[in-house]
Amino acid sequence: MMNLTESFTISLPCGWKQQLPDHLLLTDEEKMLFVIDLARWNVQAHGGGPFAAAVFEQKTGQLISIGVNRVVSGLCSLAHAEAVALALAQQTAQQYDLSSKRERSFELVTSGQPCIQCFGMVWWSGVRRLVVAARSTDIERLAGFDEGPIPSDWAESLSSRSPLPPVEVLMDVCREQACEVLTEYAVSGQPNYSPGRSQANWGFRIGSTGQSGRSEYFSKGLCCADGFT
Amino acid sequence: MMNLTESFTISLPCGWKQQLPDHLLLTDEEKMLFVIDLARWNVQAHGGGPFAAAVFEQKTGQLISIGVNRVVSGLCSLAHAEAVALALAQQTAQQYDLSSKRERSFELVTSGQPCIQCFGMVWWSGVRRLVVAARSTDIERLAGFDEGPIPSDWAESLSSRSPLPPVEVLMDVCREQACEVLTEYAVSGQPNYSPGRSQANWGFRIGSTGQSGRSEYFSKGLCCADGFT
Repeated sequence: MMNLTESFTISLPCGWKQQLPDHLLLTDEEKMLFVIDLARWNVQAHGGGPFAAAVFEQKTGQLISIGVNRVVSGLCSLAHAEAVALALAQQTAQQYDLSSKRERSFELVTSGQPCIQCFGMVWWSGVRRLVVAARSTDIERLAGFDEGPIPSDWAESLSSRSPLPPVEVLMDVCREQACEVLTEYAVSGQPNYSPGRSQANWGFRIGSTGQSGRSEYFSKGLCCADGFT
Repeated sequence: MMNLTESFTISLPCGWKQQLPDHLLLTDEEKMLFVIDLARWNVQAHGGGPFAAAVFEQKTGQLISIGVNRVVSGLCSLAHAEAVALALAQQTAQQYDLSSKRERSFELVTSGQPCIQCFGMVWWSGVRRLVVAARSTDIERLAGFDEGPIPSDWAESLSSRSPLPPVEVLMDVCREQACEVLTEYAVSGQPNYSPGRSQANWGFRIGSTGQSGRSEYFSKGLCCADGFT
């Protein structure tokens, strides 16, 4: 019997505190531009894919958590930006169901439309509002990532899913600015971490370096230890 | 600005090592009966929902990881059994893409059909085979959990998703035994952790205790510290 792993940890990259705003962000556009800046920072610091997200308390605008893509650096395919932001929000709020206190509701602001996995994560998280910048078609076209078999009525299904609490969806907020970050990622030559995409024998549409993402990340010395146990 | 959380950790419950088999499990049925025993253990130890999963190396049958549902105890809606097993397998194998070494492929054996979130996680994980016991209809009917808007052709879409590596799906392996564990959970009165389900004002179909799951778990003193930072 080989040694099995008992736990896994996903961490924000070094320097995340320096990215936080010093004032409340009150409009959807202000929140989204902050999130898009996080995504750009993640690309430039080689922290992971060109995606970021944040959870805010709806009534006050208080920032509850941030998330950036950590798939390659965290060796964890589920560590999409939305997953990180949602899990950290639940930890901060000490609620596995963010809808469990009706007087305090939360929204997820994300630089890219949730993929099939993150659509499901939003479904169970308890957030009551979802604000999206780039569409999945942008993500596929500009950065070459697969998005999976998202139901065509995914937004409608979130907003009308009785008896579960509905999730309001707002699309295309600062879409153009989010698309610029997707293009920057493609140009930077960083990896496509979808299954089989990092291997020459499965094909590699965009951003191939001829190396695994991990060795590139560590050779640049820009990645924090993730504290896996 | 409130203090934000930097990282989250998901751990297996105390006592997990004592649940491991002392010999190789070679058939689908042997592997699934082991996984179903894990799910039953999780219910009886109040570790979380009535679900378990494990990742095996396909060629050798070597056990790579186990996972049980940790949503309530981990305060994390994404900590479904499949998520835990996949993330721990990627950590053990040191691969965010379990399909990245073609000579070494992996399979996920799960006591319940993946919900919408875990379907997406399987999609990105790189496993090449998925073995399922109970169907989503069983899970909804016997334990009252919601499963989300899973595409009706989900299994076919996994097995024919070129250019991504295909995932073979095998259903109904030891389905009856898995259903018994779902019934045990419903009878035990443990919580339904879907959004809004733990609150009386959203309704609660099965297993209501009139308390949040967390307080029940901790009042029984059966839950390990999860090491959140």
